[in-house]
Amino acid sequence: MARTGRRPGASGSRAAILAAARRAFAAHGYDGATIRGIAGQAGLDPAMVPHFFGSKQGLFVAAMEFPVDPAALLPGLLAPGVDGLGERLVRFFLSIMEAPGDRGAFLGLIRGAVTHEESAALLREFVTREVLGRVAAAVNESQPELRATLVGSQLVGLAMARYVIRIEPLAAADPETVVAAVAPTIQRYLAGSLT
Amino acid sequence: MARTGRRPGASGSRAAILAAARRAFAAHGYDGATIRGIAGQAGLDPAMVPHFFGSKQGLFVAAMEFPVDPAALLPGLLAPGVDGLGERLVRFFLSIMEAPGDRGAFLGLIRGAVTHEESAALLREFVTREVLGRVAAAVNESQPELRATLVGSQLVGLAMARYVIRIEPLAAADPETVVAAVAPTIQRYLAGSLT
Repeated sequence: MARTGRRPGASGSRAAILAAARRAFAAHGYDGATIRGIAGQAGLDPAMVPHFFGSKQGLFVAAMEFPVDPAALLPGLLAPGVDGLGERLVRFFLSIMEAPGDRGAFLGLIRGAVTHEESAALLREFVTREVLGRVAAAVNESQPELRATLVGSQLVGLAMARYVIRIEPLAAADPETVVAAVAPTIQRYLAGSLT
Repeated sequence: MARTGRRPGASGSRAAILAAARRAFAAHGYDGATIRGIAGQAGLDPAMVPHFFGSKQGLFVAAMEFPVDPAALLPGLLAPGVDGLGERLVRFFLSIMEAPGDRGAFLGLIRGAVTHEESAALLREFVTREVLGRVAAAVNESQPELRATLVGSQLVGLAMARYVIRIEPLAAADPETVVAAVAPTIQRYLAGSLT
């Protein structure tokens, strides 16, 4: 039986928050959307959002069906320092992309970004703040933000070539071959000379 | 006045060939489509196709609205040899992407590839044969095909980050900054150690 009335159960509240969040992020962007506004649109108390999603960032990850939560995973990758970070990032990115469900979610984000400017804007804001911002903060060289975006460019391109366009022999190469080939690129972007 | 009858003028024949070519490439792939079959579908003599488009490869470039014809441009880039090829390729790729019309055509190809498997298959076949095949043939190291696909991955990722998702500061960086940062990556993929 369908639930009715003013007090939906937990799953109804969660779904209502997610639906309102998708509308709010699309209308106002990642920075412009607020927990208070999203809760109001969902007809719920703002205090309920942290209960379900922890933070605006967690809500965005859930609403956009991000395959992983960078806030939960990046600190562990970054903590050991810049030495070997290129390899850790490539290995981690491949582990996401080799999992069919996570890959589908990631490719959905890419598909949205190339077909809708609003989706590109949302992805840009979120990735800049929550992913590249964290990577840049771990960089000890000049131009940390440029370095982080260069890292992002190689990882997105790897996903496009290996999993979307599926160009051989890169598509069928075993992950360790890819790590060996690409990790030095990422490491140079993080810590090498860019000039 | 609209033209009528069985013998369209040159522009009508050209358009008929392009329309038939798009259908044939979609149905049979780049390798499977034939000049003879395309001309037959267009109701024209196969000898007319080279007159307008030179070759199947030229017809594909026109039908898919490729921004540039790799068969015409790559030999000049590759001729001076592997030394400095990374920089020449990045500089050339940026020159295409900085031209708004060419960029739009390139992004249309990417958009097609992420949204339709048939478009991804066509792009894959064509790029593998006409672009990466030529680059691989210029490489003097082991695993030339893998090296060519790695080059492609960085260039596609650069396009995604700089022109589609438009992540700053990479999106606004001047071309020379990008060349200095990315050319060594391409050069290493072409001629450096991958292990």
